[in-house]
Amino acid sequence: MSLIAETPEPPYYAVIFSSLRTDDAEGYAEMSARMLELAAQQPGYLGHESVRDGLGITVSYWESPEAIRNWKKNTEHLFVQQQGRSKWYSAYKTRVCKVERDYGFETL
Amino acid sequence: MSLIAETPEPPYYAVIFSSLRTDDAEGYAEMSARMLELAAQQPGYLGHESVRDGLGITVSYWESPEAIRNWKKNTEHLFVQQQGRSKWYSAYKTRVCKVERDYGFETL
Repeated sequence: MSLIAETPEPPYYAVIFSSLRTDDAEGYAEMSARMLELAAQQPGYLGHESVRDGLGITVSYWESPEAIRNWKKNTEHLFVQQQGRSKWYSAYKTRVCKVERDYGFETL
Repeated sequence: MSLIAETPEPPYYAVIFSSLRTDDAEGYAEMSARMLELAAQQPGYLGHESVRDGLGITVSYWESPEAIRNWKKNTEHLFVQQQGRSKWYSAYKTRVCKVERDYGFETL
């Protein structure tokens, strides 16, 4: 399995989630795993890439803006249950994007 | 200085560069620093976020597609001089995106 998501020909959509963590670990791993599990079950989910080293960047890829809206709706209660994202994140930014072109290579 | 880029109201543009490294470290740090230096000098550059832990994700933000094209043109010789990106990367994907909306928060 590659760590770089295999995505179709553009156009498709990306959600860039950049975040800094608080020191509060309680429930974080479960919430994080559940977010990705809900994403993968969502119609229109194409894949994701995630890395953290202090700063965390998770990019998820989607077929349409509708798929992103549905995922967001389905995940919101995860945060509400825990008094919001500020429990786990000291700062974050979510950017919803349309991927207009892409290129790359892989050495096999 | 925040690790999360401060960007203006959308729309603006993002280049998501996802990569896996080779074992070849020769010249990598210099190339990487030079890429970001050239970006910061470029008209229309808005900021960037970068993290690596095995997988690397660097997202740079731009005012316009023209600014991205100019940056790409100015950086291409860095790779040509070193026989291409395959010296440093075993796989990469570059995605050029239009950021349509964003939201977030910061605890001060």
